[in-house]
Parts: sequence; structure tokens; C-alpha cells
Amino acid sequence: MKTLRDIGENRLLRHLLPRLPQRPEVAVGPGDDCAVVRVPGSADDWLFTTDPVIERRHFLPETPARLVGRKAIARAVSDVAAMGGTPLWILVDLVAPAATPLARIRGLYAGLAAAARKWDLAILGGDTAEGDALELHITGVGRIPRGTAVLRSGARPGDLVYVTGALGGAYLPGCRHHLAFEPRLAAGRFLAERKFATALMDLSDGLAADLPRLLDASKRGVRLEAAAIPLSRAARKTQQPLHHALCDGEDFELLFTVSPKNRARFETAWKRSFPKLPAVRIGEILADPKRRRLHFPGGPAVPLQAGGYQHFLVHKGR
Amino acid sequence: MKTLRDIGENRLLRHLLPRLPQRPEVAVGPGDDCAVVRVPGSADDWLFTTDPVIERRHFLPETPARLVGRKAIARAVSDVAAMGGTPLWILVDLVAPAATPLARIRGLYAGLAAAARKWDLAILGGDTAEGDALELHITGVGRIPRGTAVLRSGARPGDLVYVTGALGGAYLPGCRHHLAFEPRLAAGRFLAERKFATALMDLSDGLAADLPRLLDASKRGVRLEAAAIPLSRAARKTQQPLHHALCDGEDFELLFTVSPKNRARFETAWKRSFPKLPAVRIGEILADPKRRRLHFPGGPAVPLQAGGYQHFLVHKGR
Repeated sequence: MKTLRDIGENRLLRHLLPRLPQRPEVAVGPGDDCAVVRVPGSADDWLFTTDPVIERRHFLPETPARLVGRKAIARAVSDVAAMGGTPLWILVDLVAPAATPLARIRGLYAGLAAAARKWDLAILGGDTAEGDALELHITGVGRIPRGTAVLRSGARPGDLVYVTGALGGAYLPGCRHHLAFEPRLAAGRFLAERKFATALMDLSDGLAADLPRLLDASKRGVRLEAAAIPLSRAARKTQQPLHHALCDGEDFELLFTVSPKNRARFETAWKRSFPKLPAVRIGEILADPKRRRLHFPGGPAVPLQAGGYQHFLVHKGR
Repeated sequence: MKTLRDIGENRLLRHLLPRLPQRPEVAVGPGDDCAVVRVPGSADDWLFTTDPVIERRHFLPETPARLVGRKAIARAVSDVAAMGGTPLWILVDLVAPAATPLARIRGLYAGLAAAARKWDLAILGGDTAEGDALELHITGVGRIPRGTAVLRSGARPGDLVYVTGALGGAYLPGCRHHLAFEPRLAAGRFLAERKFATALMDLSDGLAADLPRLLDASKRGVRLEAAAIPLSRAARKTQQPLHHALCDGEDFELLFTVSPKNRARFETAWKRSFPKLPAVRIGEILADPKRRRLHFPGGPAVPLQAGGYQHFLVHKGR
């Protein structure tokens, strides 16, 4: 009997998502960072995303509750940023064992509320239920000027591939990045408003898992330059910084593509707008969707392994 | 150390919800069946609700997966009906153990998709994560003509209290009501469009738990006629049908109040529009919020106990 473990999250979603009913106003259905809904007569499109945050998967029993609440909201904010939009409204489903100390729940909600204030969001409500583990399920709703959401599917051959910030090590001891990351909201809006990005997503499961999703959506390949991939301080302290940058996940940086004809204009405008946040060119989109290689300087080109984090598959502890 | 078990869901929510950040466009925040958002320039208000559906809480391991998917959607539809609105879009967070048979997940999604088609909904997407128990977290979004949503807070002294259908026994052996119920979508719209209902909610945790929520929101009391409460066929087969009608939960009928001056007009219009669905008058709203009594014909009046289902509190098996 086949189980989820046998097929993993990617194949599960590939199987399930195309069969789900849609409606005419749904401009982008399942499969991107957010769904996009276009209501007739509205100047804005609406963006919808959900994110689970589960004890022992996304945080530990000893993680301070306020940081768990913050992380839950920040993940949804990052999904909206990954379309180029502005988040507005949050719903929260809480699951908790009956023996959960009240102080922990208060801490969670204090973290949710503080994060909502930070990003100017309303928490519309939600529901609570008893369950075996502590979980938050966050729904985020955002807006973006009509027709300007940047999808994963827009990358064209020759487009240059960029990432913001530095990658890897979000879960390494002493690194709180997976709890304290800053969703790239202003950067996402900049990329959408200025129409620089042809494709855009956020990095939640690691470059090696997420880039193939962008390539699949765009039906393209890639030439990735290993030496160009920006390594986080935490990753650089390890024996295998590149492995961490490719596979750890929870970077919540933006991954995007820019047409080569806009390269100079984009890089100048970026530096002016984000002097403290690097946007690093790490590769180039190829026409052939089967060509997906990681190039080492003066060394071999290896196939880009679909590593990174995938739910249900057997994987390293995180 | 206080835990959730010590305070229960009602007190938890009363404590947490008022402190959550809001935004100016949020017309109704946490605490009603749906939140209501009023976007400037839009002819419709937007309705938002979330519902968890958790194995061993809302369904059993042996429950057919298609019915679980149906139930998850139907709960969200019922919340939108309880405002008088029309549901449009659904998001689904799936949590499942890695050992879950693929066939069960397929069944769940077949149930979700069939229910979405039945109520003309789009499934916008969602997320999946590994966890210890099978869970669906559903977000439902609906619309309603601007300013016409019927809240829990509108009941006035003298208003008559009605319920649709019959109550109790949704979980009794041989009764599949909690899986097969029909959300009262047309009835909810009728009550809102025709402006008959002064207050409206759906019955998810049992009349004895839900009516006090309407009374709290309206700051009113009630005189409830025990003999008038419509008993389901399943409840009538038991030794204590009234107890089941008050406390079982998952009826997903509508509970609403109507001004006495509209009584005749309402009852005539209802019978014409819903010849097969009774709307039964079960009591009257009182001015004093402390007076909440259940009257027995020729017998005693007993205080309306806040029974019914509440998460986290110790309760009967369901």
C-alpha cells in the first residue's frame, strides 16, 4: 500500500492540485506562493496563502512562544512578498493539547499580535481545537494592483537568476534565522511595481528544492554558478556551506529572474533602493527544461539535485 | 500552572480575541461566525472563516475519507450561511502522518473537490505538512452585499428565537448527520436579504453552548420553551432527547431571532420559500442578560446551563 512517505510532498501536490475545482475569477490557482483572485471592477487583485507551523516540525517545545507566533505570521507575509503584494489580513487556527500551559498560548498570541502590528495586519479571527500537538495554521490575505502579481512561471531563456541576502543554516545551532527572518516585503513590491522580475518566489525549502519549482512552472532549465551562491554566516562556519545553502530551507529570501536587457537598470535601481540588502546573480535560465546544472569554477558541472526539504519524505532532522 | 483544560475554549477566546490588532476596513473582527471586511468602493463585503477538522475529534479513523472532505467544506459553508452570505473560495491546509495511505488522501481530496463543486466554490490551494494526526484546516471566503451581514449581536428584547430543522444526535450510532448535514445556505441568504433576522448564527456546539454566545454578543437574556425545541429523529430514539438536542453539537442548523412585529410576515414568507425546512419558534429574547431560563410546560424553569461542546474542557466522548 502506497503512503505519503513513498511519494513526498511534490508528487502529492502535483497529483492533487490540478483536479481541484476553480471559478472564473481565480486568476492563479494552486501551485504558486499565493493564489490570485481578480474580482470584477476592483483595482486590486487579492492574494491568498496558508501556512502550517507545527511543533517539532517548524519549532521546538523549548522555542519561546512569542517567536513561534512571529514566525507563523512572517511565513505568510513572505508568501505575499513572493508575489510582490502587500499583506492585510490574517486568520489563525490554533490546535493545542488540553494540557498546554495557558502562559504558552498567551505567548503565542502575543507574538502573533506583535507581528501583526509590525506589518500593519489585522487578525480577523480563526478557530481553536484540541489536538495532540501545538499547531498554528495561518491564512494570509493580501492585495496587489490588478495584473501585477509576479508568478513562478514567467522565467524566459537568458533571464538572469538572483537571490536576496544569503542562504543556509537557518536551523543550525546558534542561528535563529528561521525564527527571526525579515520577509522581503519591500523588495518584493519593488520587483513587481518596477516590473523587473519575470518570475519570483520565496525560498522556504532550500534553493535546491525551490528553484526546480520555479523551473517547472516556467518549463525551463538553469545554469547555476556554485561560486556565486551567497552563503550565510551560519553556513560558512560549517564544513559544507554550499550544501547548507542549497538544502537547509527556511531562508525566506526571494528568488527571482530578470531579463538580461534590464540587468544594468535593475542592478542600479536595486542598489539605490536596498543599499543594505544584496541581490546576488547566481545563474541563468536555459530553454531546455531538462538542463539544470550546478557549475563549479574550473571544475565539473553536476546535475541540480532536487534536494532541500520536502514534507513526508525521509530527510535529515531539522 | 493553569492549562487550557482549566479555562476551556470560551474563556480562552474571550481572553485572547479582544487584544488582536485590527485595521479600519475590518467591519466585524473575531467572535462572530465570520469576520466581515469592507473594502472601500466595493458593493460586497467579504466574509472570512476558518475551521479545523481533526481525526478523533471531528471524525474517526474509519470514517470514509470522502465524507471527511465533504464535512470540512460544509463546516465553512455553514459559517458563511450563518452571516447570510455566499461562499466562494476555499483554502486547505493538510496535516498527515507520513504513513498515511495515499488512497486516504486521494479520498479526502475527492470529497473536498465534490463538495466544492456542489456549492460552486473554487479551491485556491493551501499547504501540506507532516504531523502526528490527520487534519484539515479549511479557510472559507464568501461575499455578501455591503452592510447586510447578520451578526450575533443584533437580538433585541422581545425578539422571537427560531431554529431550523431539528436538533441533537449528530454523533449517535447510526446517525451520519455530522458528516452529511446540509448547510443552510439558501435559508441564511433569505434571512439576510429579506432582513428578517436581527441576529443569526449556526449551531455547531449545541444549542446550550451556542445560544449563550448569541446572548452574550447581544447582551440579552432568553426565555426558552423546552417543549418547543425540535428534536431530531436520532435524539427522539434516546432516553434523553432534550439533552441531546441541547448538548450534542454539530447540528449545523441556523439559530436566529426575528422582531415580533415581523412574525406573521416572516412565517408566511418562510413557509413559501422553504416548504420542507421547518423554522421553529423556541423562545423569546429578554432584556436582562442574566435571565436565561429553560421553561417546561406546567413545570419548573431551570437556568440555561452553558452545556454543549467546548474544546479543551473535559467532556463526554464524541
